[in-house]
Amino acid sequence: MNVSDIKQYMQFVGKAARTASRSIAKADTATKNRALIAMADAIRRDEALLLAANAKDLDSARAKGIEAAMIDRLTLSAKGVATMAEGLLQIAALPDPVGEITDLNFRPSGIQVGKMRVPLGVVGIIYEARPNVTADAAGLCLKAGNAAILRGGSEAIHSNQAIAACVKEGLLSAGLPETAVQVIETTDRAAVGELITMQDYVDVIVPRGGKSLIERIAHEARIPVIKHLDGVCHVYIDEQADIEKAIRIADNAKTQRYGTCNTMETLLIHRNIGNKVLPALSKIYLDKGVELRGDSAACAMVTSMKLATEQDWYEEYLAPILSIRIVDDLDQAIDHITQFGSQHTDAIVTENYSHAQRFLREVDSSSVMVNTTTRFADGFEYGLGAEIGISTDKIHARGPVGLEGLTSQKFIVLGDGQIRQ
Amino acid sequence: MNVSDIKQYMQFVGKAARTASRSIAKADTATKNRALIAMADAIRRDEALLLAANAKDLDSARAKGIEAAMIDRLTLSAKGVATMAEGLLQIAALPDPVGEITDLNFRPSGIQVGKMRVPLGVVGIIYEARPNVTADAAGLCLKAGNAAILRGGSEAIHSNQAIAACVKEGLLSAGLPETAVQVIETTDRAAVGELITMQDYVDVIVPRGGKSLIERIAHEARIPVIKHLDGVCHVYIDEQADIEKAIRIADNAKTQRYGTCNTMETLLIHRNIGNKVLPALSKIYLDKGVELRGDSAACAMVTSMKLATEQDWYEEYLAPILSIRIVDDLDQAIDHITQFGSQHTDAIVTENYSHAQRFLREVDSSSVMVNTTTRFADGFEYGLGAEIGISTDKIHARGPVGLEGLTSQKFIVLGDGQIRQ
Repeated sequence: MNVSDIKQYMQFVGKAARTASRSIAKADTATKNRALIAMADAIRRDEALLLAANAKDLDSARAKGIEAAMIDRLTLSAKGVATMAEGLLQIAALPDPVGEITDLNFRPSGIQVGKMRVPLGVVGIIYEARPNVTADAAGLCLKAGNAAILRGGSEAIHSNQAIAACVKEGLLSAGLPETAVQVIETTDRAAVGELITMQDYVDVIVPRGGKSLIERIAHEARIPVIKHLDGVCHVYIDEQADIEKAIRIADNAKTQRYGTCNTMETLLIHRNIGNKVLPALSKIYLDKGVELRGDSAACAMVTSMKLATEQDWYEEYLAPILSIRIVDDLDQAIDHITQFGSQHTDAIVTENYSHAQRFLREVDSSSVMVNTTTRFADGFEYGLGAEIGISTDKIHARGPVGLEGLTSQKFIVLGDGQIRQ
Repeated sequence: MNVSDIKQYMQFVGKAARTASRSIAKADTATKNRALIAMADAIRRDEALLLAANAKDLDSARAKGIEAAMIDRLTLSAKGVATMAEGLLQIAALPDPVGEITDLNFRPSGIQVGKMRVPLGVVGIIYEARPNVTADAAGLCLKAGNAAILRGGSEAIHSNQAIAACVKEGLLSAGLPETAVQVIETTDRAAVGELITMQDYVDVIVPRGGKSLIERIAHEARIPVIKHLDGVCHVYIDEQADIEKAIRIADNAKTQRYGTCNTMETLLIHRNIGNKVLPALSKIYLDKGVELRGDSAACAMVTSMKLATEQDWYEEYLAPILSIRIVDDLDQAIDHITQFGSQHTDAIVTENYSHAQRFLREVDSSSVMVNTTTRFADGFEYGLGAEIGISTDKIHARGPVGLEGLTSQKFIVLGDGQIRQ
């Protein structure tokens, strides 16, 4: 397709999504669930087809010499197919957020005013290699009553089209318009440029991928973007921490998985407890192959620690590297998080009630925790059922974004002939 | 100031606002209320000063030949001064939204997950002539725990600076930083360009004013904008409407005030009830001097009605003009609202349960009403206490935006040493 064809194609897709969004918005829960279950059935049945399509993507990715990490994200296994189907069934089992009415109260004028939860309309999702996002995003958008336009990475085009066929089959079998979920058929980047500027047809964009992709999209979009930039997460071990909990939490926050956005990247330790926790913790980290970079006070407590540079405090390593800073008090810990953090997830370990309360209130991150690991910042762990992403924005939704983040609330007013004086 | 000076000045203002936002975010309710009450006291005490400053603005506006409607909006009377002070006291009396914790539930892992309501941070407000917005916006932002940067219309500069002095005095008397509310001191338009692109210092922009101002700001902003475009509001009189309620509501929705965004601009009437309501309604409208523009079916029912053009269905008259269309059924009414409306406020008049439910669910507007007047779409009437504006956006806040719309929610997680497996 040339550029003007792409514009025309995307306008066509957008218009169809807007029309479909009206049907999906009024679809009842049973219908949406029937579609989700039928999608899962089709995915299970088509396992061989999906794996063959994925093999095609993998072959051309390898031929292009694409890096191993990307190949890893692109790969769909039989287990991966089963997990996709399971994910759709889990979404079917979640309560339907649409139509929920809250706070319906009488006002002095006699009218009743409340809020009804409603779909956003059309959601555009832009993602990279992982093909399972196609099924997850389709399922979440559908359950939240939205139409979806999905734009996956070009390297996953065959996998995504195969999954899209199962999604379409599910929609049709429940009597819903197949255009409720559309997977962009062109790998041309111009399609993204169109998607993020079609204000009449798209209500919100959710980009998933590396920071540079997301920054570019946020910069160019003419539509609100629910975005996640980086996860520079902290654990602060307070002077009054329980030593055993502190060590367990700081270990888990760093080493349970290295490459996730909710992994701790900087450990802050109160000066007076440093000698009680740092030697034991360092041993755990070094045994697991974690490189430690400390400020001079931390280095003085543990040999075999490199001196951190200021840049280290800003760094999202996504790797077995940890920066460690000794702080004088809670204020200095909060100041450090405010200055260097990314407002993603931060935790305090303390037995002191007032310190816990202050940390909860004053740390301005999407998730703030007491006496537990940053690794819990996740839609499943929070009970949202599944997540379309994690938002580090401040308006609309913060933290893991599940069904509720894909909806909004309108006011409803019930009267009996009242007029305004 | 030249352009580079303005850039420097705005950066200075932004940095100060960001710093102040941290103090305001942790200020307790009593402190914020003390500041609000002190502001109100200062405004009452300085009535003569405020009126003198306003007279200065009015003189130069008249010298410039500014239109009467603008002069009207710019004018501050003694009663206006009292109302501003009263507004601040009402905000002081509202419950503090900041720190409210909801949905704190245990998860299978043993952690407790909930949400805490938190300020947005720094709010930039851009408005036109009305000086009272300076006090209202300052009060709402403060109570919601935000720092505010206010940019009023250049024609109100003296009035706004005089009000700003009272606001500053209130902040200082409560021990809060005076930079928590800053009123931009330059009337240069370049300041707006800076304000809406200072991503590091400003979290959200709320423009108030004409559609063209808001569209320009939304287009140029690099920061989320909570905006209100137009209010093409509808009342649909269903076949099964109570005639007496229908007439009362349709009268009030149009004629109680003509120039407000929640005034009805188009009346939709079911074909089978047209002859029962339209003659009586037309008489009311015509007696009040409302010009009627109907489709051919409506014109056939009432003489002295002009034939409407398609453009009329899109029009926000803000004037004693009403367009009237006869529709075949509920579906056609909803389709009309979907096609021509502005997703602001729409109402149905009906005694039919299913029609009311369908209208509530299917009309995608920020306020949807049954058997009452669109004129109720207002922060005070909804019990929000006051409003910073009305949002016709779909994410974050829809409808009247009060204190809650100036806040967001973060996740809080309370543990007792739990780690992720």
